[in-house]
Order: sequence, then C-alpha cells, then structure tokens
Amino acid sequence: MAISKAGASNNTMGSSVSGVNVMKVPGLNTLGVSLSRIDYAPGGINPLHTHPRATEMAFVLEGELDVGFITTANVLISKHITKGEVFVFSKGLVHFQKNNGEVPAVIISVFNSQLPGTQSLAATLFAASPTVPDDVFTKTFQIGTKEVEKIKSKFAPNK
Amino acid sequence: MAISKAGASNNTMGSSVSGVNVMKVPGLNTLGVSLSRIDYAPGGINPLHTHPRATEMAFVLEGELDVGFITTANVLISKHITKGEVFVFSKGLVHFQKNNGEVPAVIISVFNSQLPGTQSLAATLFAASPTVPDDVFTKTFQIGTKEVEKIKSKFAPNK
Amino acid sequence: MAISKAGASNNTMGSSVSGVNVMKVPGLNTLGVSLSRIDYAPGGINPLHTHPRATEMAFVLEGELDVGFITTANVLISKHITKGEVFVFSKGLVHFQKNNGEVPAVIISVFNSQLPGTQSLAATLFAASPTVPDDVFTKTFQIGTKEVEKIKSKFAPNK
Amino acid sequence: MAISKAGASNNTMGSSVSGVNVMKVPGLNTLGVSLSRIDYAPGGINPLHTHPRATEMAFVLEGELDVGFITTANVLISKHITKGEVFVFSKGLVHFQKNNGEVPAVIISVFNSQLPGTQSLAATLFAASPTVPDDVFTKTFQIGTKEVEKIKSKFAPNK
Amino acid sequence: MAISKAGASNNTMGSSVSGVNVMKVPGLNTLGVSLSRIDYAPGGINPLHTHPRATEMAFVLEGELDVGFITTANVLISKHITKGEVFVFSKGLVHFQKNNGEVPAVIISVFNSQLPGTQSLAATLFAASPTVPDDVFTKTFQIGTKEVEKIKSKFAPNK
Amino acid sequence: MAISKAGASNNTMGSSVSGVNVMKVPGLNTLGVSLSRIDYAPGGINPLHTHPRATEMAFVLEGELDVGFITTANVLISKHITKGEVFVFSKGLVHFQKNNGEVPAVIISVFNSQLPGTQSLAATLFAASPTVPDDVFTKTFQIGTKEVEKIKSKFAPNK
Repeated sequence: MAISKAGASNNTMGSSVSGVNVMKVPGLNTLGVSLSRIDYAPGGINPLHTHPRATEMAFVLEGELDVGFITTANVLISKHITKGEVFVFSKGLVHFQKNNGEVPAVIISVFNSQLPGTQSLAATLFAASPTVPDDVFTKTFQIGTKEVEKIKSKFAPNK
Repeated sequence: MAISKAGASNNTMGSSVSGVNVMKVPGLNTLGVSLSRIDYAPGGINPLHTHPRATEMAFVLEGELDVGFITTANVLISKHITKGEVFVFSKGLVHFQKNNGEVPAVIISVFNSQLPGTQSLAATLFAASPTVPDDVFTKTFQIGTKEVEKIKSKFAPNK
Repeated sequence: MAISKAGASNNTMGSSVSGVNVMKVPGLNTLGVSLSRIDYAPGGINPLHTHPRATEMAFVLEGELDVGFITTANVLISKHITKGEVFVFSKGLVHFQKNNGEVPAVIISVFNSQLPGTQSLAATLFAASPTVPDDVFTKTFQIGTKEVEKIKSKFAPNK
Repeated sequence: MAISKAGASNNTMGSSVSGVNVMKVPGLNTLGVSLSRIDYAPGGINPLHTHPRATEMAFVLEGELDVGFITTANVLISKHITKGEVFVFSKGLVHFQKNNGEVPAVIISVFNSQLPGTQSLAATLFAASPTVPDDVFTKTFQIGTKEVEKIKSKFAPNK
Repeated sequence: MAISKAGASNNTMGSSVSGVNVMKVPGLNTLGVSLSRIDYAPGGINPLHTHPRATEMAFVLEGELDVGFITTANVLISKHITKGEVFVFSKGLVHFQKNNGEVPAVIISVFNSQLPGTQSLAATLFAASPTVPDDVFTKTFQIGTKEVEKIKSKFAPNK
Repeated sequence: MAISKAGASNNTMGSSVSGVNVMKVPGLNTLGVSLSRIDYAPGGINPLHTHPRATEMAFVLEGELDVGFITTANVLISKHITKGEVFVFSKGLVHFQKNNGEVPAVIISVFNSQLPGTQSLAATLFAASPTVPDDVFTKTFQIGTKEVEKIKSKFAPNK
C-alpha cells in the first residue's frame, strides 16, 4: 500500500485524501491506528468535516496551511502551520484545513482508530441518500427552500 | 436536579434541551452516563447536530417525531417514532429530530458519557467566535459570500 | 420496539421491568447503551438487585419513589425522588427502588451497556438452578436450614 | 507488603481475606491489577459476595474448595477444585468459596482492577448504615419483619 | 486445568513457566485476566523479557527472589522479595526474576490480560525465524558478527 | 513545535528520533495520539526496541528502509519499504528499521498513545542505572562476563 504520489487535487475542493485504514489494509484491524496523506492545490481546502471515531494529528510535509477546529462551546481554535509543524483535532469536532499559500501543500494525518470515518459536512448533509427533508435544512440553517435546493444541486451524487 | 417541566419551546427552533450531565451533577464524573429531556412544540426541531463523545438512545415520552441520522457513507437512516418507541444515534454522526405532529412531543435521551458534548451545526459553523473565515464556507458549501453573511446574521451571538 | 404501555405490576413485587437491550434490538450491539421502563404499583418494589455490567441512571416519569444503593463500605445512600428527578446507581452495587406513594410510579432507567444484566438477589440466590447448597446460605446469612427452605419455597421456579 | 502468613480464620465465617490493592500499595494506581490471599478453616466459607469492578481468578495453594457463581440467568456454575487448580468468577456476579475439606485451604485470587471492591451480601444488606428499611427486605426476600430483625442482629456493626 | 506440581526446572535457565491463559482455557476469552506458576531451581532465572499486553503482579509462594524491571528512563527498579511478598511489573517493560537463594522458589504471577504474550529477549532476538540480519545485531549491540553468531548458536531452535 | 528539519544522524546509530508527544505538547494529554520524525543516514539504524504503550504506524517520507518486528511466536515479519509506503509495529513487540539504501531516509511514525515510551534494548539493558547484575546477562544471553562488560562499556552513560 503506497501513497507516495500526490493525489489529484484538480477538483472542486482543490484537495485529495489518500487514506490507509482497515478498509485498505485488513491487518490494521484491532490495532487502533491509521493515517492519511492529504494534498492541497494552492487555494485548496479540506472542507468542514468531522471524524466520529478518532482524534487526528496532522503533520505538514510540504507548504503551509490554515487549520482550525470549533469546540463544543463554539470557539474557533485556528493556526497557521508550516512544514514540519503539527496540529491536533480532537475526536468528533468540526474542523478544516485550507492552503492559502502559493504552492501545493501536503500533510500526513494520523488517527487513533483503524477506521476513523469522515462526515464531510456538505456532502453528508446535502448529498445524503435518501435526501434529508428540506424543512430540516430550512429550520436548521434558517434559509429558504430555494437556497437549500441550490446547495443540494452542487452536491448531487453523479448518476 | 429535576427536569419534570417542559422546557420553553417558543423559540426559533421550537424545541428545548434540558440536560443532566456532569456539569450539572458533579457526582456523575467517571460514571459514563447522562441524559436529557427534550421538548418539541408542534413543528419544532432539534436541528442537525452531533455529539462528539457519546452514542444517544432516545425514548419518546409524548407525541411523535421524525428522526434520522446520516452514516459515513452518506446514507440517511430515518424513522417515524411514537410514544414508547426508541431510536439510536451512533457516536459522532449527524442527526436530527423533528415534530411533524399536531401536539407537543417529549423525549428522554440517554448518552454513554457523562459529558457527551453537542455541536449544533448551524451555531457551531456560523456563530463560532472568532468567526470561521468566509472562504471556508464558500468553498465547503459552494455558496456565495452574500449567502454566508446572511446565514451568519441569523446565528449571531447576542451582544 | 415500543414500551409505551405500563408493564403489568399486579405481581408479588408490584413492579414490572420492560428492557430495550441488545437481546431485543440486535442493532444495539457494540453501541454501549440500553434502557428500561419500570412500572410500580403503589407499594410496589424493584427488589434488591445489581447490574454486573453497567451504571444505571433513573429518571422519574410519573409518581415518586424511595431509592437507594449501598456502597462497598456498607453505607446506604438513599433519596426520595419525584417526577422529573434523576438518581444514579454505580456499576455493580446493590440497589432498590420502592414506591411508597399512593399512585403508580414509572421510571426510565438508562445503562451504559447494551446488555447490563441483572442479578435480582432473592431469585439469584434462592431460585438458582442447580440450587445453591443450604450450608452456603446458613453460613452466609447466619440463619437456620428451615428458614432457608422457607425462602427457597417462595422463589421456586414454576414447574 | 507481605501476606505470607495465614490470616486468622477463627471467626464466624471461618475465613480471612488479606488483600493487596491500591489502598495498601498506592503504586498500583492505574495498573489495573490486584490480588488477595484467602485462608479457610475446615468448614470455613467466603460467603456469598460480588466484586463490582473486577473479574476474579482463584488459584488453590493448599487444600480443596467448593466454589460457584450464579449467572444472570440464575444458573449456578460450581466446581470442586484442589491444589493447583484455577477457577474464574466473572465481573459483578454473585459467588462463594467453601472449604468442605478436613484441612485448612488457601487460595490466591487475582483481579483485573487495582480496587475491585467487595459487597459481602449479608453485611452489605443487613449491616448497612443507615439501615435498609425493613419493608425492602420483607418484600425482596418474602420474609417477616421478625426474621429480618433476627438476621440484622447477627450482622450488627460492633459499637 | 491444574498447575499444582512444580514445572521441570532442570534446564538451561533453571526455571519453568506454567501458564493458564486463553490458549489453555478458552473460557477466559474477553475476561481480561490470566496467571502463571513459575518454578526456579536455586540459581535459576526467568531471563530478561517483556509482556506486550499486560501488567504482571508476582506473589512469592516459596523461597526468595531478586526481581527487577527497567523503566523507559533506563532506571532499574529492583527488590529482594520473599515468601508472601508481591511485586509489580508494568505493561511492556523489560524485567527478570532470579533465584539467588539456596532452595527452590515458586511464584504465582497474574496478568490483566487473557493473553499477555511473552518476548523472552534472547530467544526473540537470536532464535527468530527467519533470522534477524546480523548487521541489525552488530549495530544495535555494538558487537562483532562472530559474537552474534556465537549467541545465535546458543539459542538455535531444535531441528 | 516544528520537526521540519532532519535530526542530526551523524552518531553511532546513524539515526535520530524527534518525537512530538505529551512531554513536548502538554495539550496532547488524554488525546491518545502522538508522532515522531525519524531520520536515517545511509547505513543508519533505529536499533532493536519496543514501545510499551502503543502500536506504531510508519510512513516513509524519503528513501527506503528495511523494517521488521518479531512476534510472540518468535517469527520475524520484515519488509523493504519505500517512499509513500506504510508498515505497522504492534504494541509492545521488538522491532527495528534500517536504511540499507544509498541516500538518507525519513519516516513519520504515529502512535496511538500520547506517551508511547521507548525501550531501546541495548541502552535499556546495558546502560540501566543502577546496572543490571552481570549474572542476569550471562544467564539470559548465555555469554561470558567479559562479553557483558564489553557491551556495557559501549553503552555507558556519559559522565
């Protein structure tokens, strides 16, 4: 299992996650550890998401990133990190990484679970199947149905 | 510590959570259990949220609810539950409960942590302090800055 | 799985336990949470018992109860609790609930295990099969064989 | 900390427990292991009891014992064990050991907790302070108040 | 499963380990506890080794032993223990027991795992199959290939 | 806390470990994760060692390595890994990494503990303070006192 090459980050988010977890390496079962390589184009983002089953520790291989997580008291803890620096995202909390630099960035992220799971919020919410009812969105985010449908259209699963 | 009375649900969301956890009852420390009473006006919602540190099991005391959670494979698992029924929300996954009935609804929710924590997504994202940068939102949700600002204005913390 | 109706409490103990655990709902497996509804007639008791695998948190739905547990230092911690109040019984400790009120009482009890298990002491001790030898009882409780046999006869399993 | 000598077993139960746990050896804290030496006179018993926080594994050093535990399905699992044999009592379940032999018996019992705790049922129930109300006993064991008082008198704490 | 008799200790190390773990007693599975009886001839040693999955607590049944473990700060913690005394070896740390007395010694060792595992360092290193490359040894221990081969010859598995 | 630069590997072992754990970053406490950057000169080795409290997952940043661990059945599991590949060392097992390539190698190793601890076998055994008695070594490794003293002299702590 090798993740030596940059994942393709010429996509909407400008980033690519290559995970090495128990789904890829069955021998990791019960060992409680896994990792991911994440590549970011300049301007790329690993958008707002959570890992329901693990704390994540990120190590910057290349470039620089603006990273942050939000506590259960709704406080944003953020930092600009550069090559060789680390940052920790506690289990289950919403977080993001964004490359505001001019060159590609790469991190190695490690998890204390062999299957941390990911809920990338936009896809989890707006591309779920079956779809989450519109009134759940309009109530939750205090937006109109039209706006909900617009966001949903951006995240529609490919048919 | 009593939660015998309905919480006031004449608010924007039409719901009210009264939690009994280690912040309220210090003796719960290390015991790994807590509970909440949640009241819903007709039409009320406990909007999309996660609990980073606990699985939740809900028991309907009164009324009926439409409930659901989304898996890490973006599948919505939902159900209509009525008085006396239970439903389980696995640790860390995005979920909601909505009262589509004509009368108030009440649930008792229990958690396998003395401090499950809550990230109510709209407030976590749009009312965080300091604020999450706009470009994190526009990239994550593929919406415009104007739309971001509009949602932020709905969830601005009271000054 | 619904437990909306009162369990029949017109029995010797004047109480009835309706549990929702992994034996009833297989999907609870590994989730580490379960709950029970317990109904008490006036004068009814949930007699002295332990749960070997879980801490229990009780929430009074209706009526009032006298509840207590005994610590490993042989101290009785007891309380009179009424509608909306909660009480916690630590993992493995002997405890009871008794309805000394004039009306039926109901609690929702929650556990941090999908299969807490119960050892209702009188049945565990005196209705075990094969039977526990009489001299274990006479030595343990410092009573006579006749008294042992008398209690055993009360808890004999139905043939 | 030495437990090389037989504990005095010329008491009512004919047994003596010498425990080495975190209360005796503070360095055991967080290590999750402890042990006890138990001595039994001929005819002696370690009466019906539970350990709320540990599984116990007993190893017979000298003599022979009749041992048993009761499952949550009220099944008695018992065995006659002799020098060099082992037996396991699962966490939280009611159990006993009795020396029906003609010579003293000794076991080393080990626990997967630095503080397993013990609820010796007769003392827990009948010598608790404050006392457990009589009606809890008469209901639980289906005996009369007179019989309750008689047992309580046997286990009254020394004044 | 009985371990009442002394294991044969007329071997190179002058000691013998008789373990009662989940490989011998399948019912121990998930119970998190196991034990071993270890016999030492005068001058016998349980040579330098680790248990990767458990803390060990030793209880001296007969004789006397010099025991020790080395911390992650390379501090040797050692003690002379005699009949009835206990000593604890924390999970994963290198340790030994040696009988410097004139008579056989016996301990009962208990573990907070049903399968603690053992890495007896000399056999692990020098009798591994396939063999560990010589240059790993010469670099690690700063010795010559000839010396490596000499030690390997002592621990060659029987063909 | 940055570990962007290569550690100095012009030492006896030809390698250098830069760890980011709870001793360096107190905020990691209770989070159960840490990581290290390890640099290897050509020919350099991270000599035989164990981590008593964590499983390790290594990711090759640069170069190539021969890595291996030994199971509790004395089986050597080894592999040649190159840039982008990963390898896992289970909790507590003896393992090593050696750079047999012509250029420097670098790995990021991650641990499922905020303080995995390390027992570098040669230093643990031969540089312990107080010193481990010679007869423990001569018995364990079946070598002479002279050879023991020779190895000890190589690992003597600097005065």
